[in-house]
Amino acid sequence: MSKINKVVLAYSGGLDTSVIVKWLQDTYDCEVVTFTADIGQGEEVEPARAKAEAMGVKEIYIEDLREEFVRDYVFPMFRANAIYEGEYLLGTSIARPLIAKRLVEIAEETGADAISHGATGKGNDQVRFELGAYALAPGIQVIAPWREWDLNSREKLMAYCEERNIPVDFSNKKKKSPYSMDANLLHISYEGGNLEDPWWEAEEDMWRWSVSPEAAPDQATYITLGFEKGDIVSIDGETLSPADVLTKLNKLGGDNGIGRLDIVENRYVGMKSRGCYETPGGTIMLPAHRAIESLTLDRESAHLKDSVMPKYAELLYNGYWWSPERLALQKLIDATQEHVNGEVRLKLYKGSVTVVGRRSDNDSLFDASIATFEDDAGAYDQKDAEGFIKLNALRLRIAAKTGRKLS
Amino acid sequence: MSKINKVVLAYSGGLDTSVIVKWLQDTYDCEVVTFTADIGQGEEVEPARAKAEAMGVKEIYIEDLREEFVRDYVFPMFRANAIYEGEYLLGTSIARPLIAKRLVEIAEETGADAISHGATGKGNDQVRFELGAYALAPGIQVIAPWREWDLNSREKLMAYCEERNIPVDFSNKKKKSPYSMDANLLHISYEGGNLEDPWWEAEEDMWRWSVSPEAAPDQATYITLGFEKGDIVSIDGETLSPADVLTKLNKLGGDNGIGRLDIVENRYVGMKSRGCYETPGGTIMLPAHRAIESLTLDRESAHLKDSVMPKYAELLYNGYWWSPERLALQKLIDATQEHVNGEVRLKLYKGSVTVVGRRSDNDSLFDASIATFEDDAGAYDQKDAEGFIKLNALRLRIAAKTGRKLS
Amino acid sequence: MSKINKVVLAYSGGLDTSVIVKWLQDTYDCEVVTFTADIGQGEEVEPARAKAEAMGVKEIYIEDLREEFVRDYVFPMFRANAIYEGEYLLGTSIARPLIAKRLVEIAEETGADAISHGATGKGNDQVRFELGAYALAPGIQVIAPWREWDLNSREKLMAYCEERNIPVDFSNKKKKSPYSMDANLLHISYEGGNLEDPWWEAEEDMWRWSVSPEAAPDQATYITLGFEKGDIVSIDGETLSPADVLTKLNKLGGDNGIGRLDIVENRYVGMKSRGCYETPGGTIMLPAHRAIESLTLDRESAHLKDSVMPKYAELLYNGYWWSPERLALQKLIDATQEHVNGEVRLKLYKGSVTVVGRRSDNDSLFDASIATFEDDAGAYDQKDAEGFIKLNALRLRIAAKTGRKLS
Amino acid sequence: MSKINKVVLAYSGGLDTSVIVKWLQDTYDCEVVTFTADIGQGEEVEPARAKAEAMGVKEIYIEDLREEFVRDYVFPMFRANAIYEGEYLLGTSIARPLIAKRLVEIAEETGADAISHGATGKGNDQVRFELGAYALAPGIQVIAPWREWDLNSREKLMAYCEERNIPVDFSNKKKKSPYSMDANLLHISYEGGNLEDPWWEAEEDMWRWSVSPEAAPDQATYITLGFEKGDIVSIDGETLSPADVLTKLNKLGGDNGIGRLDIVENRYVGMKSRGCYETPGGTIMLPAHRAIESLTLDRESAHLKDSVMPKYAELLYNGYWWSPERLALQKLIDATQEHVNGEVRLKLYKGSVTVVGRRSDNDSLFDASIATFEDDAGAYDQKDAEGFIKLNALRLRIAAKTGRKLS
Repeated sequence: MSKINKVVLAYSGGLDTSVIVKWLQDTYDCEVVTFTADIGQGEEVEPARAKAEAMGVKEIYIEDLREEFVRDYVFPMFRANAIYEGEYLLGTSIARPLIAKRLVEIAEETGADAISHGATGKGNDQVRFELGAYALAPGIQVIAPWREWDLNSREKLMAYCEERNIPVDFSNKKKKSPYSMDANLLHISYEGGNLEDPWWEAEEDMWRWSVSPEAAPDQATYITLGFEKGDIVSIDGETLSPADVLTKLNKLGGDNGIGRLDIVENRYVGMKSRGCYETPGGTIMLPAHRAIESLTLDRESAHLKDSVMPKYAELLYNGYWWSPERLALQKLIDATQEHVNGEVRLKLYKGSVTVVGRRSDNDSLFDASIATFEDDAGAYDQKDAEGFIKLNALRLRIAAKTGRKLS
Repeated sequence: MSKINKVVLAYSGGLDTSVIVKWLQDTYDCEVVTFTADIGQGEEVEPARAKAEAMGVKEIYIEDLREEFVRDYVFPMFRANAIYEGEYLLGTSIARPLIAKRLVEIAEETGADAISHGATGKGNDQVRFELGAYALAPGIQVIAPWREWDLNSREKLMAYCEERNIPVDFSNKKKKSPYSMDANLLHISYEGGNLEDPWWEAEEDMWRWSVSPEAAPDQATYITLGFEKGDIVSIDGETLSPADVLTKLNKLGGDNGIGRLDIVENRYVGMKSRGCYETPGGTIMLPAHRAIESLTLDRESAHLKDSVMPKYAELLYNGYWWSPERLALQKLIDATQEHVNGEVRLKLYKGSVTVVGRRSDNDSLFDASIATFEDDAGAYDQKDAEGFIKLNALRLRIAAKTGRKLS
Repeated sequence: MSKINKVVLAYSGGLDTSVIVKWLQDTYDCEVVTFTADIGQGEEVEPARAKAEAMGVKEIYIEDLREEFVRDYVFPMFRANAIYEGEYLLGTSIARPLIAKRLVEIAEETGADAISHGATGKGNDQVRFELGAYALAPGIQVIAPWREWDLNSREKLMAYCEERNIPVDFSNKKKKSPYSMDANLLHISYEGGNLEDPWWEAEEDMWRWSVSPEAAPDQATYITLGFEKGDIVSIDGETLSPADVLTKLNKLGGDNGIGRLDIVENRYVGMKSRGCYETPGGTIMLPAHRAIESLTLDRESAHLKDSVMPKYAELLYNGYWWSPERLALQKLIDATQEHVNGEVRLKLYKGSVTVVGRRSDNDSLFDASIATFEDDAGAYDQKDAEGFIKLNALRLRIAAKTGRKLS
Repeated sequence: MSKINKVVLAYSGGLDTSVIVKWLQDTYDCEVVTFTADIGQGEEVEPARAKAEAMGVKEIYIEDLREEFVRDYVFPMFRANAIYEGEYLLGTSIARPLIAKRLVEIAEETGADAISHGATGKGNDQVRFELGAYALAPGIQVIAPWREWDLNSREKLMAYCEERNIPVDFSNKKKKSPYSMDANLLHISYEGGNLEDPWWEAEEDMWRWSVSPEAAPDQATYITLGFEKGDIVSIDGETLSPADVLTKLNKLGGDNGIGRLDIVENRYVGMKSRGCYETPGGTIMLPAHRAIESLTLDRESAHLKDSVMPKYAELLYNGYWWSPERLALQKLIDATQEHVNGEVRLKLYKGSVTVVGRRSDNDSLFDASIATFEDDAGAYDQKDAEGFIKLNALRLRIAAKTGRKLS
């Protein structure tokens, strides 16, 4: 165990990370700097200050990172239409790189030689925090208490609290849930408890951000989203900041029972896990973005994006946001978004999102004069299709003539 | 124009293809063989016989291909989780290869030297029919009347009917629709008319196979699908044939307002077009298949499938079902489905499909003893994660040490 | 046939394109503008002026595009390590986009409504010229005489020359070859004649740019190439312009019997063709670029590039240089080249190119202190490998425990 | 440290693995089973028996696996045209899965609970051995002495030998080399020593399997290889077994100075390393296989293979031969090889391999009647090209008309 002088901890203000403050102080005999960020998790961050102070923390960072989070992480990811394993909108994955970045920046500012976090040794989040930290600060040390200590049961943790005078009541709301939860402006996740049986259906009162489809209004809600260069900049004509866009879409989605997801996913560390997610705004954003792209993006650019998307999503899921390969892919993706401008109209109703219209004044590539079923006045010469088909078929015909069978 | 002796026509029994019968007889002075297939379009096929006979057709093929269609085309495609441009379930694309195959087989049986179809020169279907035909019968000739004749307006077509004594009333139901429609057991599509304005919302009475979400029952319907090697073999415990599976899922989906899609897509011939689709059963099958895979498929097999899926879907959309590259991809896909066995439970409610459970007695790779948030009794050593992260980070750290910046 | 007022012709000054000048004047009764470019084909371009004048051409463009060709086309392509079908360095493909661009620019400058070229209807070059032209000038018309006229034999062509007083002796050197040839600073190609039998070995005197390996010096030549951002900027310490780099490498390669290639390739129009190529400089550049990348490029960036390279090469081969998808891929590729700086030492000897050393003062990611077989003083902790392997194996073990067989 | 009763060791008979025998006996107080395989490394394996016996080993496996190695590992890999990072023919990677498989099979036969190997904690081979072992025998334990012991310098190792009476002279030939070497029928590798400076050129006397190009014959050697389903089955008309094919090609290549490679590669464990390789036969096989494919493989099958090849090569390099994803890819690859039959003629001369001819009686897709530059008698209608180009250009023109710029 190398000597640590000062460590920056990703501190939520909850019980677990409060225990970590103490444990770091005790175990490493080092100073702890706490870092608490508002990334839209829906809980006050300011109370973390008093708790940290009470444990003798001298350097306390509390920051509102919501705008940065949506602008520099969520939006670039949605430009890629990123979705992991066909279902997951990467809500947890996308928040980690920002935390990792601030941790190492604060370490530099405060002269700390290590960072620490409260993620377990079984999950993806440890990987995401640490890969990010190492990529941005190659000499940093990382302390992952859950991989080191022996407080691996609730009882031992409680005993430790009592012994060290850590007030156990300061975590409250979350403790009422039997699930392991994580939230940010993009989503809230649930794992563990009964969900460890993948056949078991999540009970209604687990969900926190959305009403059930059954409880949603009987009347559909229609909205219009405005896009500039692939990002949403307005809702129903009102220009909004990135964080305000997502906040409002979360409200609209949640009110309409939209964004619940129940999946079994493959973790980077090699196991399958079952997770439930609520991503109300994101569940609206994805089809809306695809819809504006469907009108404004060239076919081959769109297909190229689709072909690299699974790789991009995998990189994010696995924790490689801060990597040269993600940056290179982002260049490709962003290069396609120049003309992704216009509006998308959507219908939100009891759990479903339906695109019902899309338009773009200057960037539409939909040419009704060519596509029409009516007389096109020569805009398209149907006879061209014969040569097109004949040459595309040529290799197949040559092969078939040699006697090769395809069926 | 080469001399044609006999031509096999894909004959729906409707007005357009009836005109084509006459036009082929007149223009090529050849015999016409009609081929009418029930692929689940929901219309009687037997009436096509009398119509064909009335026009002097001597060789008439009328076939029920529903089981073959689902078993050999729809199911293999769903094993791949195929989806075109993020949205489209390829309902039209997947029916064409079967028609093309039967056309050239009948041509061989009847000694015909050509085939013909009623697809226009602007669409994908001409490509799909003809690529398939050329791949399976490289010497076949193809007559595509819509690319050849000058009956390119409704008026000219009607004038031709009158002149040739083609009874115009024998197409009826479809004519009431202002849309160009196509149906099979997987879906029904709508194009043209008001849909040529992509901002315009399709009116409720366009849709034929599903009730609106608003009109669907207020109570959710739960179903359990049984999978064997990636294919659905039972619904709620009842073993069903492929076509019966899809028929029943169409009913379940349609009753619950499921499967409507409204998109702008990129045609292979180079234009964008707007289409609306109803795919009630398919919209249930896709997430169900992904769910059973999520439990039973190895991570890297799943990711490999995801990485080739856009290519596979593009091949199907573009008409390359009968190609060596599609067959090679199918080998890869089918090789992954050996253990995709088990059950998936879904909730259908007012337009949305939600997976709520999945299980597999023998093939689950979900190992709760490893994934658990509780004490895992040593099944997983959290300390392994440190080495895993350290070595995955090594290249990033080395790069960062040379001064490279990622942010 | 639409009315053409003025057409810009890609004019080599040889017989075929001279015939085209006349044929265009006759057939379209239009003015012809000739465009002749030096892209390193190794023939004088200035003589084309007198020939064009003799045929009454008033607007004559003769340009030296060698630097632009290498800087903006060849070098960006080599950053991608582009190679088509595992063998072909795309020497013809890469020159066409530049010609297409100048053709439509000159059309705009001279008010021409069409462009024309001398490529046949069987090859890739017509596609490359025309896709480029349409992409840059969507309203341009294209006249491809070889697809239109009936001068499809040498006799008919000669008869036409005689009839129209086209001096047939003004093409000379090339006529001595029985092969269809094309050259630019990157390569020279040979097709047709005896090569149409793919079992037949090209005779020694076909090759023009290289000595045979047998005739090359008995002593190896060593050279050192300097790279900046992925491009070669110096040879043996001497800073050179892009065109000078390639000119010198062609000399070095040709003198050492390097760069001959004999392949069967798949044309975009659907047929296989046999071609022989001499690419002396390019055959040195490719392994040299890979070598400097091997030292300076991050592993995953390198693998990402490799994964998109076949697509990139296919795009270039098929004529999609001027497309949004090529531009997006180029962004990705160029983003990886920032640190591809340093030197590569190569041995050239009787047909083979061998990398024997590579170094980079500031951008090497090779860390001998870690990689060493000697004591590394703790730079790398071998124990980390255990966790790395264990977690990478986890999914395989879980699957194996369920009884799945891999062998 | 869990209790080990019996361990199967991959035993070369050399000093290092002899030390491991002793160390395992001492450290784990367990029985050691030795496994020594002839995979074409060019050294006698039988002497390993006496050495093992001298150390008290009771169960000794000595096997000739050369045919299995080439038939079931090398040949399937070459069907894929596998090449890592553009250069490396995976000579070491491909031997490990076979060793891993035999290790766990012998463990099962002998009732051993562990396997062991002599690979270090820095390299890829530990990963390849262990991933393979875990995939095939999920409950197996792995002992990797180099990661555990403290004999991490030559001095300590020698001291241990003396202390334990291990005769140090029984490894001899290899000790004369300052390099870390590994050999099998496909290649021999060199690492370490002076090679740790990537600018340093390997000296001539390092290379063992090939003469220098300078020392090779002044006369070229021509050979003809016969292929069946993608595998080489004959040389110059003589039918040979897989191992005999590779043995003979190694001789032919080595005699002609062929197969030397000097690269910096990216290891899976995260570092770059410099390696030199001699792969005489493989360097002939790769272009020969590509040549027979060029004649017999459909374009899109070939491009599909090329698109997945980097992934396939990466899997092999990283040690995932025994994985469901490699098996699925192999299905795809093998499905394309059905018609890869015929002959390739090559010229071997002073370090270079040149394909000079290829033919296939029944499976050639090269159709000279279509490709010809002469009159093709209507086999190909050049007018088809216009429609082909027009429709391929359509999307580009529509985009350009909206004002989008590509240059």
